[in-house]
Amino acid sequence: MLTNLQTIRIEWGDCDPAGIVYFPRYVEYFDRCTRALFERAGLSKRDMLKTYAIAGIPVVDMKAQFVIPSRYGEDVTVESCVIEWGDSSFVVRHRLMRGDAMAIECFETRVWVVQVSDDPVKYEGRSIPREVKEKFGAAGTAKAQS
Amino acid sequence: MLTNLQTIRIEWGDCDPAGIVYFPRYVEYFDRCTRALFERAGLSKRDMLKTYAIAGIPVVDMKAQFVIPSRYGEDVTVESCVIEWGDSSFVVRHRLMRGDAMAIECFETRVWVVQVSDDPVKYEGRSIPREVKEKFGAAGTAKAQS
Amino acid sequence: MLTNLQTIRIEWGDCDPAGIVYFPRYVEYFDRCTRALFERAGLSKRDMLKTYAIAGIPVVDMKAQFVIPSRYGEDVTVESCVIEWGDSSFVVRHRLMRGDAMAIECFETRVWVVQVSDDPVKYEGRSIPREVKEKFGAAGTAKAQS
Amino acid sequence: MLTNLQTIRIEWGDCDPAGIVYFPRYVEYFDRCTRALFERAGLSKRDMLKTYAIAGIPVVDMKAQFVIPSRYGEDVTVESCVIEWGDSSFVVRHRLMRGDAMAIECFETRVWVVQVSDDPVKYEGRSIPREVKEKFGAAGTAKAQS
Repeated sequence: MLTNLQTIRIEWGDCDPAGIVYFPRYVEYFDRCTRALFERAGLSKRDMLKTYAIAGIPVVDMKAQFVIPSRYGEDVTVESCVIEWGDSSFVVRHRLMRGDAMAIECFETRVWVVQVSDDPVKYEGRSIPREVKEKFGAAGTAKAQS
Repeated sequence: MLTNLQTIRIEWGDCDPAGIVYFPRYVEYFDRCTRALFERAGLSKRDMLKTYAIAGIPVVDMKAQFVIPSRYGEDVTVESCVIEWGDSSFVVRHRLMRGDAMAIECFETRVWVVQVSDDPVKYEGRSIPREVKEKFGAAGTAKAQS
Repeated sequence: MLTNLQTIRIEWGDCDPAGIVYFPRYVEYFDRCTRALFERAGLSKRDMLKTYAIAGIPVVDMKAQFVIPSRYGEDVTVESCVIEWGDSSFVVRHRLMRGDAMAIECFETRVWVVQVSDDPVKYEGRSIPREVKEKFGAAGTAKAQS
Repeated sequence: MLTNLQTIRIEWGDCDPAGIVYFPRYVEYFDRCTRALFERAGLSKRDMLKTYAIAGIPVVDMKAQFVIPSRYGEDVTVESCVIEWGDSSFVVRHRLMRGDAMAIECFETRVWVVQVSDDPVKYEGRSIPREVKEKFGAAGTAKAQS
């Protein structure tokens, strides 16, 4: 199962008056990590949008547990992988590690969508191409990955 | 049960190249809505930090479902309330309405914490004062609210 | 000369570990204030993009002086107006007031542009329609406004 | 004169519905580049705040010219250096390069400040220690650098 490790420097501007990361910034970090995971699989966002004529892979469901805070100036590592493949959706798991300790765990459910009108809020799921799944080392069934 | 309605203008800079809100911005909207809910209860963050000597009310768990996207220039309304009170934690529910349709539902579990060392990442939960809960119209037990 | 006053609540997440607004957030505030100024003139961004077939009014030059910091929980007011009209460009001045004190002054030079290819980075200035200028109370010449 | 080169990946979430970087994000990029420039000089922010008992190096004046936009998925490079040293202030110049073309030039005037009360908005400039300037290869006078 393809896993991406991304080192992230906690910036001053990502932290709040309590001196720790303002939590919505983590959600942004994780979105970047999904982008990086796809690139590791050989799939840049720009190419994906063109090749597969999709509007994107928006998040439809998110769950996160914030266990340990992080401070500015620290380097943390995020381990990201797809833990489940459905027909038109998939689940990305991110684990933000502060040294050996898991500081945050986040699950993003994303959908492979096409736009179905000029209105950008109208889109529909489509089957994820087999070749895309294969780039992540996914076998035929989702269960094997989870 | 005290509920706060917050109108939010979707700004151009909150939207992505697909023309819809970049989803981490919603998490920021909801944090603002929790702040506004507490103010409606008569509890400004600055006062709370001073009066109760707490470090804050950080989110330790978050769940969100993103059902319908929103576009720049739209006004959406977020309905926020505390749906459950524990001893040191509580759950805030946000529903982002796009007209009559529920576009997003988000649950934040937050903890009432004090700092226990100079290191801002070290903090511990404390019992939420009864008077705080009462300002939200909470009865003695959490279950009655959920 | 049309002036817009916008009250802005300084949010916790807009402030840094020093307890004051992280300065790039001000630039975002000012962009919102330009949007609000145009709406006061009867020009919503969505309508402008459609009516005049422009790609936007991007900032090509910015100058800002940060005199007094602001803290979370404060309400500040931004006074915004167009102080100069050129053929295809104009200058917006924002003054962020903390009570009676001018905390920040910012000048944005913006251009009225159309896209000239499929590549979003390729755009060109166009003459600003007279009716647009008139909505701001601008007389025939730019100098009269500055 | 010490110069830092920082490669920045333009993220999807940093871009707006026009498909180009939302300009306040650049200001955030440049702040990160100043942080990186200081680290290249051997000065991490955390250490600086402790060693010199300063509150920070806030920006008091900023000028920027936005010449060419950038799109998501691109890698740009920012060249940063201190071009002028005063007694308590200094000027950082950032040039964001899109390939060989200078896309943006930004000048930040920053001040070496200490906090002078419990109120984080009250601070005052102090003389920048000679050893700090020397780490950037600055000679005795500011003019020689500019």
